Amino acid sequence: MNKQLILKKRPTGLPDADTWQLNQGEIPKPNDGEVLIKTHYISLDPAMRGWMNDSKSYIPPVALDDVMRAGTIGEVIESNNDKYKVGDVLTGWGGVQQYFTTNGEGHFKVDTNLAPMTKYIGALGMPGMTAYFGILEVGKIKEGEVVLVSGAAGAVGSVVGQIAKIKGCTVIGIAGGKEKCDYVVNTLGFDGCIDYKNENVHSGIKTHAPKGIDVYFDNVGGKILDAALTRLRRYARVVICGAISQYNETSIQGPKNYLSLLVNRATMQGMVVFDYADRYKEAGMQMGMWMMEGKLKTEEDVYEGIENFQETFHRLFNGNKRGKLVLKVKED
Amino acid sequence: MNKQLILKKRPTGLPDADTWQLNQGEIPKPNDGEVLIKTHYISLDPAMRGWMNDSKSYIPPVALDDVMRAGTIGEVIESNNDKYKVGDVLTGWGGVQQYFTTNGEGHFKVDTNLAPMTKYIGALGMPGMTAYFGILEVGKIKEGEVVLVSGAAGAVGSVVGQIAKIKGCTVIGIAGGKEKCDYVVNTLGFDGCIDYKNENVHSGIKTHAPKGIDVYFDNVGGKILDAALTRLRRYARVVICGAISQYNETSIQGPKNYLSLLVNRATMQGMVVFDYADRYKEAGMQMGMWMMEGKLKTEEDVYEGIENFQETFHRLFNGNKRGKLVLKVKED
Repeated sequence: MNKQLILKKRPTGLPDADTWQLNQGEIPKPNDGEVLIKTHYISLDPAMRGWMNDSKSYIPPVALDDVMRAGTIGEVIESNNDKYKVGDVLTGWGGVQQYFTTNGEGHFKVDTNLAPMTKYIGALGMPGMTAYFGILEVGKIKEGEVVLVSGAAGAVGSVVGQIAKIKGCTVIGIAGGKEKCDYVVNTLGFDGCIDYKNENVHSGIKTHAPKGIDVYFDNVGGKILDAALTRLRRYARVVICGAISQYNETSIQGPKNYLSLLVNRATMQGMVVFDYADRYKEAGMQMGMWMMEGKLKTEEDVYEGIENFQETFHRLFNGNKRGKLVLKVKED
Repeated sequence: MNKQLILKKRPTGLPDADTWQLNQGEIPKPNDGEVLIKTHYISLDPAMRGWMNDSKSYIPPVALDDVMRAGTIGEVIESNNDKYKVGDVLTGWGGVQQYFTTNGEGHFKVDTNLAPMTKYIGALGMPGMTAYFGILEVGKIKEGEVVLVSGAAGAVGSVVGQIAKIKGCTVIGIAGGKEKCDYVVNTLGFDGCIDYKNENVHSGIKTHAPKGIDVYFDNVGGKILDAALTRLRRYARVVICGAISQYNETSIQGPKNYLSLLVNRATMQGMVVFDYADRYKEAGMQMGMWMMEGKLKTEEDVYEGIENFQETFHRLFNGNKRGKLVLKVKED
């Protein structure tokens, strides 16, 4: 049987038990040109919350009664496609289910001798690519600049900050709780970290970056974005990567300090990682190199079982996880 | 005697009778290297409202008990500086007063045979320069793009839209009232205009720009900025030039639709015209050329008397003016 998570109802606020339904479907048969994939790991990302809303975005919403969309990594267990053989490992959009068939479009074959599966949906997958292109191409960091990163202990933020360190920037993180902040500074090597749960973010930025910030990489939106805006230096860049504090809100809080962009001739720019798809390979090689050199540390927080999807998904929003959140698909 | 308007009290909300005081000072004597200027026209600009606040900005606030800062144009009536002779016309920061002395720093000599004085504080002055560099350098318009401009009948917006038309764009304006909208379309040649006082701006943009907008030039902020954000095309640019709807508010309304920047990989960028000072001459020549060719129409709305400053200044915010607002300094 094939365990699948179906989107049953569009949530208002935080998704709950009514949002999804666990189905037991048949294991599909691959047609000519297709492969059957057994999923090992499912990527849990804040962006998934947006895909549940019925609104125009950078990707169509998940349709009601469809399998919940998710990035995955898994193994080919049956192949009717000459490009793939049984045992090949593919990452792509498998969705929250145990098995699926694909003609390979939108899926990439990866080498698990170079890195374990979970890295390919973490630092070598969508979150890592987002960090890489976001900080380098949109943030346009230069050596000696001051970079502020929210969600600093998360899948994207942790990589953003480390890349900025590699490039010679001073890097300040924002994270929730002392444990995460200690991790950000002591393990990831950031120059400082503001604990937004126990500190005033505005004065924290002032203390850690007394001359202001050149780049703010925003994963969270809301009050933290507003605090960062007050401390921009001239020609600063604000990278809008996400707004996790707002995803479950029914009314979005706009950045009331946006006129700081005018005062400081600054730029606020949005990004979607898919635009860089033709450069994923280049980025993956660079990131892999940094990992091997010990310059880029990455961590996955792995939970188990599709039946635990909802509880695990909530960890993205309550902050009860560290690094890349991953759901392991159990053997039945 | 020298009539001067002194900033007495920092206003909360719209400036009122307590904000300024009319003084009668001595006419100053120019020192060595200085000239004495008799001001003919004073420029009234929305940005002046910001200069009255005691907050960090792109320019220091006007100090209490100082003459209110303003752009001016006037005539040299006494000169102790070899670079200037009596009768020369200079534009610069003269402030709201009849006479002042200067060593010429920050002032430019202009030729009133080429254009009347009022143009040099309008389309050939700060508002025109703002329009020119804002739409070309920050908006980066390209032929065939769709450009939306708020404050379309104003000193900056009217020029922005006409430059965009010259460059081959489709241009939609937003202005207050039927008369202004008619002027924007029939006189200035915009392709359409939305009357925000009598129309729904969101659906107006949809009607006039069914495929969305590539550039939004924002002079107003608030709800109109939010409406524009919902209609961005991919890679759109939002130029933050001003936020006149917010200048007298005690709490700024942030753009709650800012995540449209993410969805559309769009950029919101602030600008301050002073950054382009070394290119004013180039821009002035180009704008003058367009004026002579009849491609750029500009208008000044002239009121008279420093004692009428406050009432005239209010016209910036109640919309009761068209084109560039100017205060003529009366002979006593």
